[in-house]
Amino acid sequence: MSGHATNLRLKLPAICFLLQLLTIILFAVFVRYDQETSARLWHEERRDHNKSNRDNDFYFRYPSFQDVHTMIFIGFGFLMTFLKRYGFGSVAFNFLTAAFAIQWSTLIQGFFHSFHNGKIHIGIESMINADFCSGAVLISFGAVLGKTSPVQLLIMALFEVTLFGINEYILLSVIGAKDAGGSMTIHTFGAYFGLMVSRVLYRPQLDKSRQKEGSVYHSDLFAMIGTIYLWLFWPSFNSAITAHGDDQQRTVMNTYFSLAASTLATFAMSALVNGGGKLDMVHIQNAALAGGVVVGTSGEMMLTPFGAMIAGFLAGFIATLGFKFLTPILDSRLKIQDTCGVHNLHGMPGILGALLGALVAALATQDVYGDGMADVFPLIADGSRTATYQGVCQLFALLITLVLAVVGGSLVGAVLKIRMLGSPPDTQCFEDEIYWEVPVDHPDGYGHMTDVNSEDPERSASV
Amino acid sequence: MSGHATNLRLKLPAICFLLQLLTIILFAVFVRYDQETSARLWHEERRDHNKSNRDNDFYFRYPSFQDVHTMIFIGFGFLMTFLKRYGFGSVAFNFLTAAFAIQWSTLIQGFFHSFHNGKIHIGIESMINADFCSGAVLISFGAVLGKTSPVQLLIMALFEVTLFGINEYILLSVIGAKDAGGSMTIHTFGAYFGLMVSRVLYRPQLDKSRQKEGSVYHSDLFAMIGTIYLWLFWPSFNSAITAHGDDQQRTVMNTYFSLAASTLATFAMSALVNGGGKLDMVHIQNAALAGGVVVGTSGEMMLTPFGAMIAGFLAGFIATLGFKFLTPILDSRLKIQDTCGVHNLHGMPGILGALLGALVAALATQDVYGDGMADVFPLIADGSRTATYQGVCQLFALLITLVLAVVGGSLVGAVLKIRMLGSPPDTQCFEDEIYWEVPVDHPDGYGHMTDVNSEDPERSASV
Amino acid sequence: MSGHATNLRLKLPAICFLLQLLTIILFAVFVRYDQETSARLWHEERRDHNKSNRDNDFYFRYPSFQDVHTMIFIGFGFLMTFLKRYGFGSVAFNFLTAAFAIQWSTLIQGFFHSFHNGKIHIGIESMINADFCSGAVLISFGAVLGKTSPVQLLIMALFEVTLFGINEYILLSVIGAKDAGGSMTIHTFGAYFGLMVSRVLYRPQLDKSRQKEGSVYHSDLFAMIGTIYLWLFWPSFNSAITAHGDDQQRTVMNTYFSLAASTLATFAMSALVNGGGKLDMVHIQNAALAGGVVVGTSGEMMLTPFGAMIAGFLAGFIATLGFKFLTPILDSRLKIQDTCGVHNLHGMPGILGALLGALVAALATQDVYGDGMADVFPLIADGSRTATYQGVCQLFALLITLVLAVVGGSLVGAVLKIRMLGSPPDTQCFEDEIYWEVPVDHPDGYGHMTDVNSEDPERSASV
Repeated sequence: MSGHATNLRLKLPAICFLLQLLTIILFAVFVRYDQETSARLWHEERRDHNKSNRDNDFYFRYPSFQDVHTMIFIGFGFLMTFLKRYGFGSVAFNFLTAAFAIQWSTLIQGFFHSFHNGKIHIGIESMINADFCSGAVLISFGAVLGKTSPVQLLIMALFEVTLFGINEYILLSVIGAKDAGGSMTIHTFGAYFGLMVSRVLYRPQLDKSRQKEGSVYHSDLFAMIGTIYLWLFWPSFNSAITAHGDDQQRTVMNTYFSLAASTLATFAMSALVNGGGKLDMVHIQNAALAGGVVVGTSGEMMLTPFGAMIAGFLAGFIATLGFKFLTPILDSRLKIQDTCGVHNLHGMPGILGALLGALVAALATQDVYGDGMADVFPLIADGSRTATYQGVCQLFALLITLVLAVVGGSLVGAVLKIRMLGSPPDTQCFEDEIYWEVPVDHPDGYGHMTDVNSEDPERSASV
Repeated sequence: MSGHATNLRLKLPAICFLLQLLTIILFAVFVRYDQETSARLWHEERRDHNKSNRDNDFYFRYPSFQDVHTMIFIGFGFLMTFLKRYGFGSVAFNFLTAAFAIQWSTLIQGFFHSFHNGKIHIGIESMINADFCSGAVLISFGAVLGKTSPVQLLIMALFEVTLFGINEYILLSVIGAKDAGGSMTIHTFGAYFGLMVSRVLYRPQLDKSRQKEGSVYHSDLFAMIGTIYLWLFWPSFNSAITAHGDDQQRTVMNTYFSLAASTLATFAMSALVNGGGKLDMVHIQNAALAGGVVVGTSGEMMLTPFGAMIAGFLAGFIATLGFKFLTPILDSRLKIQDTCGVHNLHGMPGILGALLGALVAALATQDVYGDGMADVFPLIADGSRTATYQGVCQLFALLITLVLAVVGGSLVGAVLKIRMLGSPPDTQCFEDEIYWEVPVDHPDGYGHMTDVNSEDPERSASV
Repeated sequence: MSGHATNLRLKLPAICFLLQLLTIILFAVFVRYDQETSARLWHEERRDHNKSNRDNDFYFRYPSFQDVHTMIFIGFGFLMTFLKRYGFGSVAFNFLTAAFAIQWSTLIQGFFHSFHNGKIHIGIESMINADFCSGAVLISFGAVLGKTSPVQLLIMALFEVTLFGINEYILLSVIGAKDAGGSMTIHTFGAYFGLMVSRVLYRPQLDKSRQKEGSVYHSDLFAMIGTIYLWLFWPSFNSAITAHGDDQQRTVMNTYFSLAASTLATFAMSALVNGGGKLDMVHIQNAALAGGVVVGTSGEMMLTPFGAMIAGFLAGFIATLGFKFLTPILDSRLKIQDTCGVHNLHGMPGILGALLGALVAALATQDVYGDGMADVFPLIADGSRTATYQGVCQLFALLITLVLAVVGGSLVGAVLKIRMLGSPPDTQCFEDEIYWEVPVDHPDGYGHMTDVNSEDPERSASV
């Protein structure tokens, strides 16, 4: 019991204040507005390069940014509210973790990608990338949902964001891989990192909390808010940082059709694999989204609309099968307790997406891409590598991602085992009351049932 | 009972796989990226026409597209969750039906509108139009909500999308009618098509399920999510495919004011017609939206802000009256069981909107439209028809829409009567348990009430 | 009891019809499309100034407008659904009040800001400003939530919008203060206006309704929908009407970081001040948003990202303390019953934001702003005032805002005390049943619990 001192009164303020103070100091020293955000620099840029305000990258990216932002805070947050007794923790710890992760990743990604003359310069694209990075952390959160304290989550975010930045730097800048929608950097990385954390934090006695792990009718509807928003805005997610023009539009279209096909596959498989032919909300809430994950790498490429549909269909297919058959095995055999089934939604479709990206890259030809080759595959366009070699690099990128995620997740899991981080006891997992003031509900779901039928003379008079 | 074999285990996978496979094959054969989405073509277009990336139609349309997308999947989906026992079916069958409809309508609309040299070329505008078409299907879904299986819904979508495409082609390309926001093509068509389907599927014994047809407190709040999103984004819906510049802005503004006025009319009428002067959530959830429907045709025209307000006010007025007085009559006299009251929200306001569009078109003058006439009424601008004749064409378009919707809905309703499509029995309408694994809820609405007050020594120690 | 004739049957229709009719007449007489919305004028503008459609302000502002629109109707509406028995009233009276306020403020703001040759010309910017003004009214609504009838709310909106317009005119046009995100004009004004209304309407017997004032588990989750949307889109709110280019991007970035920091501060303080170290949903739902309020004035200035973080952190810090310690004192000592704690979220952070704006303005230098000075501080750029004097003007603007809000709120509160406006009796505050047809809920939260476990042979056969 002594390992589960779950009172947050000092721990949570201490970690929040410490991390926020550290972030503020590092921002004060290193972070500056970039040339499109600074009043002086943008006006110099306009004068020097004869630009107009409408050339500001803001107008190409801000609508996509807001869609991504919605996915991170509404999408992930509400998707996890399916747990009947952990709705507060789901949406609010998601909120807290992401609010820290976007700050920290601005620093980490800034050091790797926009560090010039001792300063990090930030703008709309860094905000999107920070949201992306927090997405990976939230995927990992899904694996450990209900079994970790907010203190543990903030520490996990601190390390995971850092490792995410390293992995992303290796993939994009060193290897020259393409991964605009993050099949590898976000989904594969976030999923296997989180699964390893969950493996290290394995709870043999978790059965003591199993009766809390389910949903109730309305918690499943809250979760559908998250699902639908993730589904809707995934085209914006995959296209948010692709090149302007045809690239953004093509990525949107590929993602749109991939998601539509994964939705049909999910409904089909859910009815097929469930006893009695009934549909399962868990599948709909999750597997229907696999179509977004699977085109995270190839979405900006000339995948073709029907290619996107095939990819999405396969992703929904395997994700639903994963929920039905693989998640129980991961738990019983591999001791990986995956609360939200991130292996099914992000892990397998992420790997599939990486492989698809390698294939489509290897098939790129000048005839299909024309002058657009320079936007999608600059290293092929400038002759420094062949399409086949680009495909090999993509595969290598997947390998590195898997290694870093597994090693990193294991190490961070070990850190999170430190006592005194407020981890809940086995009997109190998936339970808001341990960290939250929870209202005592009345039987009618919104108030005093007895009142409704009472003959209150005062009310009768006034109504 | 034999007509109600509701087990979906084989039926739903079969229809999903079949439709998705068919779609993929047709896409592979016919569908290609258009000149703004293809890497090669867009760069050729830029070079040949001296365009910049910011001229890509994506940047004019994508924010509107995402708003429309939200309306289709969140708006319609949650609006229908008002039923206390049919929340899963409402949001998820909406999801499934629309995910198929957007794929199928891309094909159908593509054949009619962008079929060149044996190929359909698609881009952001085709995605918006596909969402629009699925909107019509979802309106029809509203009429039969809770009384149809997902298999029936997919078959309905297959036929309705096809007929929608034919009707839209006749209206826009043959007759030269204007209907950017779809008062006719979407709302009138979808409503009367669905009402005829419901008529053919009339269930004399539906009273056996009536006690399930109501709402509970929180299901009404879930429905308000749908209502508010539909209300918010209707300006984007009506303006999504109008001409660039003043047309999009004017359509947004007219819709904005029409909706505001219909909201006041709805609250006023709801208090007036209900016994006891109490407001009715059904009215607020639905009739307040009639302001968006009623300016679907005229929104892009020089309707004037106060004209939009008058239109919206009338629409909210008649829609609320419809819910109170007409829906019961449709049911008892005409044997049309209209679950969501689509006749009130989409049917009557759609017809009113078509008439308003005809009137405003007939009043168009060169003095008011100036050089903008070519965008709104190209056939008037180029002298090939007069404003009066345009108005007559608008009326004719309404007539065709009504005929096609009524005939088409009747025929498709007959198809849906085929046994073995999984239709629920009369006793199990408006009931999720027939198609879904439904969690058994506990009395406190989120978990074990007894736990909350128990003196669990372990918890007390750990908290 | 005679003062609480809460039947709305005639009162609500009367006020709605009257206000809508008045608005339509005034619009017919005074309101016209502006040069970017009118078909004729925009095409003349394009020809005369060699503009293209992409120069239409619509494309710079519409995505931000839709985010603001979402905040007003979803954000404010659902934030207030935390009350267990007042969810209908929260989201629907918010809807009604804002639907009227946006119409009325288009007129009022139009008279002050775009009245030329006897006509008000409106476009996308006037729509944003109308939404902003309705935001102030909804803040005031938060102070009186559950204690006022919709008739009272409409009358409050009528007067508050008018006074808002006067205050905004004095601040922006007479004094030349800057306040793009409305720390003063919206938050400070709306909060203190509402608090004074609540003071005048003080109910000594409100304890009779206290047991209805709390939340239930799912009502807190509905409220989080509002919170997260407000949080997400606040960058759009603060940047919606700043100058094109760097100004919009910088405002977004400052708000983004301020909100992230206020979120960490809120979680820290909530755990610290609550007994037992448990987090309180009220704090998370509200105080985490203070970071958006506090940079409402300074967000467009060269605040620096770390400056924004410090501001947000302080705002979250004091807002949480306010909920814990100040709200009870306001109630018991000052007789101000502040249902939603708007003093903590909008009042104090609004004043802090005004002071911060004055400070940052006073520190403005040509070196930091370069040619961008003309966009942010036109009066400093053209030499007509110094930075220090601008700072003094900002302080003066705060003072005027406070005076007008306090005086105006007191007077309007007195008006709302008029009998026959449908105010609820003390025993029926925070209660939907007084104004709404409320469904009788079943114990399992979505239907007939007994049914779930019953052995219904018909159902067993059909499933």
